[in-house]
Amino acid sequence: MNASSPTQFDAIKIAQQLAEKFAETAAERDKTGGNPKVERDLIRESGLLGLSIPNEFGGQGGSWKTIFKTIQTIAQVDSSLAHVYGFHHLLIATVQLFSQPEQYEKWFTQTAKENLFWGNTLNPLDQRTIATKVSETDYIFHGDKSFCSGSIDSDILLCSAYNEAGKLLIGVIPTVREGVSFLGDWNNMGQRQTDSGTSHFEQVKIQESELLLNPGPLSTPYSSLRPLIAQLIFVHMFLGVAEGAFETAKATVQSQKAWSKSLAENAVNDPFTQKHFAEFYVQLEGVRLLANKAVEILQQAWNMGENLTAEQRGEVSIAIATAKIASTNTSLYITQNIFQVMGARATTAKLNLDRFWRNVRTQTLHDPVDYKYQEIGEWVLTGKVPDPSFYS
Amino acid sequence: MNASSPTQFDAIKIAQQLAEKFAETAAERDKTGGNPKVERDLIRESGLLGLSIPNEFGGQGGSWKTIFKTIQTIAQVDSSLAHVYGFHHLLIATVQLFSQPEQYEKWFTQTAKENLFWGNTLNPLDQRTIATKVSETDYIFHGDKSFCSGSIDSDILLCSAYNEAGKLLIGVIPTVREGVSFLGDWNNMGQRQTDSGTSHFEQVKIQESELLLNPGPLSTPYSSLRPLIAQLIFVHMFLGVAEGAFETAKATVQSQKAWSKSLAENAVNDPFTQKHFAEFYVQLEGVRLLANKAVEILQQAWNMGENLTAEQRGEVSIAIATAKIASTNTSLYITQNIFQVMGARATTAKLNLDRFWRNVRTQTLHDPVDYKYQEIGEWVLTGKVPDPSFYS
Amino acid sequence: MNASSPTQFDAIKIAQQLAEKFAETAAERDKTGGNPKVERDLIRESGLLGLSIPNEFGGQGGSWKTIFKTIQTIAQVDSSLAHVYGFHHLLIATVQLFSQPEQYEKWFTQTAKENLFWGNTLNPLDQRTIATKVSETDYIFHGDKSFCSGSIDSDILLCSAYNEAGKLLIGVIPTVREGVSFLGDWNNMGQRQTDSGTSHFEQVKIQESELLLNPGPLSTPYSSLRPLIAQLIFVHMFLGVAEGAFETAKATVQSQKAWSKSLAENAVNDPFTQKHFAEFYVQLEGVRLLANKAVEILQQAWNMGENLTAEQRGEVSIAIATAKIASTNTSLYITQNIFQVMGARATTAKLNLDRFWRNVRTQTLHDPVDYKYQEIGEWVLTGKVPDPSFYS
Amino acid sequence: MNASSPTQFDAIKIAQQLAEKFAETAAERDKTGGNPKVERDLIRESGLLGLSIPNEFGGQGGSWKTIFKTIQTIAQVDSSLAHVYGFHHLLIATVQLFSQPEQYEKWFTQTAKENLFWGNTLNPLDQRTIATKVSETDYIFHGDKSFCSGSIDSDILLCSAYNEAGKLLIGVIPTVREGVSFLGDWNNMGQRQTDSGTSHFEQVKIQESELLLNPGPLSTPYSSLRPLIAQLIFVHMFLGVAEGAFETAKATVQSQKAWSKSLAENAVNDPFTQKHFAEFYVQLEGVRLLANKAVEILQQAWNMGENLTAEQRGEVSIAIATAKIASTNTSLYITQNIFQVMGARATTAKLNLDRFWRNVRTQTLHDPVDYKYQEIGEWVLTGKVPDPSFYS
Repeated sequence: MNASSPTQFDAIKIAQQLAEKFAETAAERDKTGGNPKVERDLIRESGLLGLSIPNEFGGQGGSWKTIFKTIQTIAQVDSSLAHVYGFHHLLIATVQLFSQPEQYEKWFTQTAKENLFWGNTLNPLDQRTIATKVSETDYIFHGDKSFCSGSIDSDILLCSAYNEAGKLLIGVIPTVREGVSFLGDWNNMGQRQTDSGTSHFEQVKIQESELLLNPGPLSTPYSSLRPLIAQLIFVHMFLGVAEGAFETAKATVQSQKAWSKSLAENAVNDPFTQKHFAEFYVQLEGVRLLANKAVEILQQAWNMGENLTAEQRGEVSIAIATAKIASTNTSLYITQNIFQVMGARATTAKLNLDRFWRNVRTQTLHDPVDYKYQEIGEWVLTGKVPDPSFYS
Repeated sequence: MNASSPTQFDAIKIAQQLAEKFAETAAERDKTGGNPKVERDLIRESGLLGLSIPNEFGGQGGSWKTIFKTIQTIAQVDSSLAHVYGFHHLLIATVQLFSQPEQYEKWFTQTAKENLFWGNTLNPLDQRTIATKVSETDYIFHGDKSFCSGSIDSDILLCSAYNEAGKLLIGVIPTVREGVSFLGDWNNMGQRQTDSGTSHFEQVKIQESELLLNPGPLSTPYSSLRPLIAQLIFVHMFLGVAEGAFETAKATVQSQKAWSKSLAENAVNDPFTQKHFAEFYVQLEGVRLLANKAVEILQQAWNMGENLTAEQRGEVSIAIATAKIASTNTSLYITQNIFQVMGARATTAKLNLDRFWRNVRTQTLHDPVDYKYQEIGEWVLTGKVPDPSFYS
Repeated sequence: MNASSPTQFDAIKIAQQLAEKFAETAAERDKTGGNPKVERDLIRESGLLGLSIPNEFGGQGGSWKTIFKTIQTIAQVDSSLAHVYGFHHLLIATVQLFSQPEQYEKWFTQTAKENLFWGNTLNPLDQRTIATKVSETDYIFHGDKSFCSGSIDSDILLCSAYNEAGKLLIGVIPTVREGVSFLGDWNNMGQRQTDSGTSHFEQVKIQESELLLNPGPLSTPYSSLRPLIAQLIFVHMFLGVAEGAFETAKATVQSQKAWSKSLAENAVNDPFTQKHFAEFYVQLEGVRLLANKAVEILQQAWNMGENLTAEQRGEVSIAIATAKIASTNTSLYITQNIFQVMGARATTAKLNLDRFWRNVRTQTLHDPVDYKYQEIGEWVLTGKVPDPSFYS
Repeated sequence: MNASSPTQFDAIKIAQQLAEKFAETAAERDKTGGNPKVERDLIRESGLLGLSIPNEFGGQGGSWKTIFKTIQTIAQVDSSLAHVYGFHHLLIATVQLFSQPEQYEKWFTQTAKENLFWGNTLNPLDQRTIATKVSETDYIFHGDKSFCSGSIDSDILLCSAYNEAGKLLIGVIPTVREGVSFLGDWNNMGQRQTDSGTSHFEQVKIQESELLLNPGPLSTPYSSLRPLIAQLIFVHMFLGVAEGAFETAKATVQSQKAWSKSLAENAVNDPFTQKHFAEFYVQLEGVRLLANKAVEILQQAWNMGENLTAEQRGEVSIAIATAKIASTNTSLYITQNIFQVMGARATTAKLNLDRFWRNVRTQTLHDPVDYKYQEIGEWVLTGKVPDPSFYS
């Protein structure tokens, strides 16, 4: 793999090459869980970590379409790696949305140059980490944070803490900063190599210049695009997993005989099998188009910068919520029902094909899809767009 | 309405104006059934009948995107009129696909100039009409044809008959041709103003120059686009009806109180109501995008003309079958479930809101959707594209 | 038909004979709507109106199982007649639940002897009819009531009015009582021969001895069985309609060829067709058993009389709500999807097969099924049984 | 636990006590897989292995209702143990159906007396084990068999081999018979403690008196009840797992707050959560009743013995197929969707709640549910009952 100045087309090709590599060990690594150090380093070497960084800072300045496509491609074989890779780009975007170029220039330049991997310790729902101002320019972050995907083996961390006034402060620090440690306690039924466990901040010093204060989190319609980008990463993860499951089922069935009572000899000609695959395909096509549309609308909003209105941001929100619902339902449907067409032998632990379902079943719970329906329904009936939050 | 040289934008605007007009009487006309003469004349006057006719013959040369959009717009309020209007354009396309400009030039020129409405008496499944060659240049068509949508009050007819060799001959004749009559026996639960009843051909003389013989029906991949256009008309009809039902339900609910046990006061804030509308919306959005994609692929294939390969034609077929399945399911789902949110008072015959369901339930039976699934499933699993036929 | 002292077995047989008779004209009568006088008189003559009246008053003292079975049997061919016939028995039960034998003895004796048909003008949601006490023993009811199923051509009316204190008074009067009239304004998309239109009470005199005051409406757990009986009548109507639609579809398909692309020659051997019918059957079987169970629990509660506790009444409520949800979903599913297996020719207005769907679509809106789910969910999670009301 | 002469009531109580015990370690044992020796011994000690053995041979002579209820009870917490326990009773029944009391008396007496656990190495689809007659009274079985649930740690084995004429011979031998070994190669995504791996028969001697030849496998309608009993065991396993998942979700939700955007404070009052639980409950109730009905019909058929006709056997088959379809769909639906109500924290590997889904997803693939639909559909449309086989 050669990462020197990939064009957009190259980025997707590189992602495909990574995916091929990851596919060899994905089933096995899912079982062991833990940190996929080897694969993370392959991502670093691929140059894809610079994809979202503007050209002016040495990155490839890829479009959102390209960025999401690379996430989807990796998710087809390994949604844990797709997650931490996708969140890297989310964190790069977060900095762009919550702060100014003067502040993030050095981080981006260094990231592009050294292929740094960003990790997430932001979880705003977990209020255990406290920020205390200890001087004109210095803060101390202290406490725990849960659900810190991609934290272990990261180079740079996005971290957060609440100050005494209840305001969320978000900072960017080197992962090696003194006092930062990770409990390595992520052991869940899916997304097993995302290291989404607990981080501990032991009296960690953070300078004001490392805090994202201008304009700060969710302070404007434009900065509020951040959670929508997170949601759209999920959409592409769900879609990728569904596509991976679909391809696996297809390859499996192509060499099978039909059930003894079938009117057909081979499984590929069995009417029930054909109908199942058509149901998968029709759903997948719908999700692909909904995801594409959401990406286009996001890109337009992104391009508008601080000119983006609350109403326009709301439209992005609805397009992404729509894709989120469809991709949630479709990925659960396909990962559950591929077994129906593959049959009992597909349940062997060696193949580990239940990981597709376990991965989307886990990640689709990030926030309740019922409330995505609620938001869309409210908007349809009243015209009110969802209030920006870290989930909407 | 002024039909002189509408741009594409105008065509859609004209369709919207027609739709507004048709909406006033649609509920009532559904009850009476029969031929919507007044509305058909409004379509004639609108100029939209020339939309699919190339500029060189005096038509507006509208893109498929524009043509389908006008069908969808009319279907939002009246799917019978959308049907006969859509089939007019299908018949214009049929002539383009099955014959040469030298032959159809005069028909198209006259159609564009005089706003002629084409009617369908083609049904290839009904083999009762027989063609007999009676001279070097003359044929006699004799017998019945069922399911002849848009035949009554048409100006030009596409008709068909089987010759003794079992070959389907398709001709274009003035509707007033001696021997042509219509039984007016269409009385079905839906699509009640399509006049889809029986035509009778009593020793009807047809000249060889009126037959579409070069290249003739379904003789090449390109000419085989014809049934796909028909299917895509159905897609836009189903989509339009679903959108019409959705808008009706929305308007109804917006003024209602929530059920007494709801946590909300107004229906628009009731969680169950909101979720139903979100389910409608997510499905509609998916169908809209699948329909758009199918239109784009069809347009590309159309532009290729006889260069179109069987494989490329197959891809158009799959894209349209995908949209057909999704639009079938969604239109049935929405037209059935709008009542769930509107409540008992919406069942009054005065509003006649069951017509949405009756219309799509009827038209979705044109050919069994199970075999659209079958075709897609077979293609997914074996790569085989559907064999061209009048249904695939 | 001979109605003299039918045993329980006879009741069902009589209902089947009535159903056969009604089936001959059901499609046609659905179109015309209005009052089915001939058929109502056949019900009178059948003796089935005495089925729910205890033996001691000259009735047949049928079990709830038998009563519901006769309703279901009639609903298989005509859900309008099933409705008014079922509501007759509901009104008989209402009197038993809301008043004492001394009061209703004469009404029951006369009903059994003369085969009187009871009609409903109770609708508690419509508060337009006002009760005014005009003497020690006399009241005046004045105003309108909507949704009065079975009112026209009835012999005895259950009517209601609110007094100035907002208390609902329910009375039993001869339909010929001076001042009672019916607007005949029921014209809805389904249940078209139920006469569920508006009644007008023009200064109607009602004696206190005609009011059901001891114990009165919904005053005890036992008396609160009334709305549950209504709901269970709906369950058997929905089930009956679904069964009728199923049998119609089965008979239709048995003589059809399979679609040209099928691996089978005849429709009965087509895999997709077989699967659709299996889906119908599995759902129907489930609903039949849920309905049976609800009837058994209701009968037990009925037998307990005023010993019934609120908790026990709640269990009846949950069993019936469960059957209501399942029968709602199944009847809509089957009446919509029979067309999928029967094909386009089944849409002819002559057969009028959309009436199955129109009937259940209309009647399932009596009260929102979403709130039946809500009640069950709340009970599952908190143990709280639904509060008695005219809908729960 | 005291197993001496349990009444039917005791059997269920004993099963509940076992279930409580198994529940303590079920999550952990699912992870390790392998043979649950400790729990199998608890089953032995409980006396439940004699439940299906007639009183005359020292067993408890439990009804099928009781037997299935004990299987369901165990499946609520551990479907692997339910499987091998259920199959023990299936094997006891197999011997009764395929042979005569004179032959099986000693096996049953010993089983009841010594609480012997029967294991399965029967798989008729795997034809690798060959039977060779080596003397007037002796056979050699040689070769492999896959999917041998409950083989390891069994006391008695039901085994099978094909002779040169292609006839399936079924024998009963002590598991310690020389030449019998187990590869211990079961490692699948679900049903992980069923030891459903490969058995090897190395020149195993079997006497003719150990073969079930009178009447032999599937030789009569009565003996053909065997596969139906297997299917009904699956039904109760699926139902039990669904119930276990439901109870787990319920307990989890009862202590949760509602999502921040909910109109309710606590999850138990959240409308979406309530509706999900109602959907679970309504489905569960339906399956419970369908399973009960199937058990009743099976018991009746069982009681008829060799008087059972092919048609009557067919009705049992349809009732069980109906319950199989419903329990398959419901168990997959509930085990997938409990996560929707429980949220992200329920995915922790410590709870191991995905095992519910993995277990039913694996076991529901025993034979394709599509062909259960096919059988029912064919029967509905043609009256033809399914041909007896080891799957129907």
